[in-house]
Amino acid sequence: MKIVHTGEGVTFAKGFQAIGIAAKLKKSGKPDLALIYSQVPATVAGTFTQNKVAAAPVYVSKETVATGSAQAIISNSGCANACTGQQGLADAKEMAMVTAKELHIDPMDVVVGSTGVIGSFMPMEAIKKGIHDIVPQLSDTGSPAAGKAILTTDTHSKTICGTFTVDGKTVHIGAIAKGSGMIHPNMATMLCYITTDLAISHSMLQKALSAAVEKSFNMISVDGDMSTNDMAIILANGLAGNTCIEEENEDYKTFYEALETVVVFLAKEIAADGEGASKFITIEVLHAKSFAQGKEVGMAIANSPLVKTAFFGEDPNWGRIICAAGYSGGDIDPNHTTLTIGGIPIFEKGMGLAFDQEALAKIMAETNITLTIDIEAGQYEPVIVWTCDLTYDYVKINGEYHT
Amino acid sequence: MKIVHTGEGVTFAKGFQAIGIAAKLKKSGKPDLALIYSQVPATVAGTFTQNKVAAAPVYVSKETVATGSAQAIISNSGCANACTGQQGLADAKEMAMVTAKELHIDPMDVVVGSTGVIGSFMPMEAIKKGIHDIVPQLSDTGSPAAGKAILTTDTHSKTICGTFTVDGKTVHIGAIAKGSGMIHPNMATMLCYITTDLAISHSMLQKALSAAVEKSFNMISVDGDMSTNDMAIILANGLAGNTCIEEENEDYKTFYEALETVVVFLAKEIAADGEGASKFITIEVLHAKSFAQGKEVGMAIANSPLVKTAFFGEDPNWGRIICAAGYSGGDIDPNHTTLTIGGIPIFEKGMGLAFDQEALAKIMAETNITLTIDIEAGQYEPVIVWTCDLTYDYVKINGEYHT
Repeated sequence: MKIVHTGEGVTFAKGFQAIGIAAKLKKSGKPDLALIYSQVPATVAGTFTQNKVAAAPVYVSKETVATGSAQAIISNSGCANACTGQQGLADAKEMAMVTAKELHIDPMDVVVGSTGVIGSFMPMEAIKKGIHDIVPQLSDTGSPAAGKAILTTDTHSKTICGTFTVDGKTVHIGAIAKGSGMIHPNMATMLCYITTDLAISHSMLQKALSAAVEKSFNMISVDGDMSTNDMAIILANGLAGNTCIEEENEDYKTFYEALETVVVFLAKEIAADGEGASKFITIEVLHAKSFAQGKEVGMAIANSPLVKTAFFGEDPNWGRIICAAGYSGGDIDPNHTTLTIGGIPIFEKGMGLAFDQEALAKIMAETNITLTIDIEAGQYEPVIVWTCDLTYDYVKINGEYHT
Repeated sequence: MKIVHTGEGVTFAKGFQAIGIAAKLKKSGKPDLALIYSQVPATVAGTFTQNKVAAAPVYVSKETVATGSAQAIISNSGCANACTGQQGLADAKEMAMVTAKELHIDPMDVVVGSTGVIGSFMPMEAIKKGIHDIVPQLSDTGSPAAGKAILTTDTHSKTICGTFTVDGKTVHIGAIAKGSGMIHPNMATMLCYITTDLAISHSMLQKALSAAVEKSFNMISVDGDMSTNDMAIILANGLAGNTCIEEENEDYKTFYEALETVVVFLAKEIAADGEGASKFITIEVLHAKSFAQGKEVGMAIANSPLVKTAFFGEDPNWGRIICAAGYSGGDIDPNHTTLTIGGIPIFEKGMGLAFDQEALAKIMAETNITLTIDIEAGQYEPVIVWTCDLTYDYVKINGEYHT
């Protein structure tokens, strides 16, 4: 994929419009309602939280995705509409219905996403007024506004767009995402909306999205908490004019690579912008015997509060890293494990190594640090996990964020 | 068990002596070497970390416990002797040999425990001098000194002692423990040394200890990190004069109850004194279908950084609690889940309840808070997990604790 640095995001692909506004759902008065719209019906795919306590919009959007087709995404921040029972479900459905009515489309073609406080009812009067206000503002340049309106404690919007060629046609793809708190693997661990003008069948689109999410959003961790509201949705409206992709051919592979580029970029952005994060940490697990083993080892390190606070303190405390790998369930043998930080070997065959303390201190002081653990268990390609450090600000943000 | 508040700890049972000294292993000059000694050989049992990266003393002490008999425990803080390879193993064995020589006992009768920094070699000259110095100081009143010498970031020593009656004889039991960081279930998640003058077979002693650890140390979590050095050791020297317990009879049950009282007390002490903790949180899971299910739900709540920071912020954020239960793997149904904090119902059948905000704010301001979640899945007796909040001080302690 050729990445384009225009910030056009979800409106980069042909036929898509978007916008974000302040609908007074947030007390702060910040933008809190986003709309993404395709001028023609699009093929849709989605991945959703696996939390048993899923929010109402997750249930509603799962039904829409199951139909294989959608034309709009209405998404709010400020209220998660989770743990809100039958009333919450009715409210999420009404959000879809009101949006559909204003857009003159079928309610079953509207995806609903929410993020924010759990346990509060959706302020439906404000939402309904917001939807009425937002539709006329849809714009070819509205992606940045939409990207801002889905944020909660994120410090900035995450977006990417680019092009790739399929069947001789230039295809556009773009996305917006939000992350920050309650970030943990097992599903689309945040909100992510992707649009493309590719022509592709529902089953191929879902297959590509599920596979790409597994390698991206499911490989990041901020705090080990899995949200009630996570979803990644992709709309593909076919306006690029390529022959519709209906099997795993070369075109599918070209598209998959572009999609993986998009979601890996956003996943890393989310980990780097984790609540209170001061450092972005890449964990490479080499020579696992399987993806599952590599992921277990990488995730145990990524989730360890002791490792995360050590990075915050800029301390190359390899003991905590090896300790986390040891309890990971990945069944490592410390006597056949090697660890490097920023390329400097610091642990080998069950023991620490002498290393250049000054050089390592310099690496630990950087904001972007890579840790590589070779577990010599098999031949699996590198398994990569992304995380951030654990700081005073994480405690501050989550200790002071009141219900 | 009748708890005795004399603080006599591991010297409360007949025939046991102990002491702790500063052997200059810690830069701070604080006490760092402890010795516990039984005047006669004792039956021994132990539980050990399940971390694949276990420390050298764990390997050495496992061999001693396997023999069924021991007479002394030498335990240091300041250096974990973990990730130290063959040299570390040789050092741990030498600690046992030197202790045995000074005490004129068999080296295979010495248990070795270590806690502290991972990856440093044991300063053997200081250790050997320390062992030479410590033996003559063994005392009938030395338990408090021993208790202090095994601490790292703990703010205070944990100890308990008491009596129970078996076979018409008064039996004494006492213990010292340390916890604080890297506290997570799956084994004896810290150092704990228990002494009793009960007469009991090795297999019955091991059975009782393993069962009691499962209900105590394996049910607490400070930060989700499992240490490389955890061990719980019990010495039973038989001086109470009871008929030796060799089967699960009434005497065994009486002893088991006393032992469980001891270890549950210490486990709660460790959770309450978690690194940086300002609040002690008891999580009761009611109506699980099994112990495993209840533990999964309770532990997910106990390990959630979002729940832990909410308690630090004194915020009754039930959404985060229900969310953690939802992703726990315990397979709960939120529509059949009820949550109370300090006895005040706040969540029922998938939704939040109206509650007396002032009354709940008062409960959240306390330092000792009980959260009860009824998952209506079965008839299992309450499964109880203990944890603490996540505070600025946790980040400070672990961000500033340098290798």
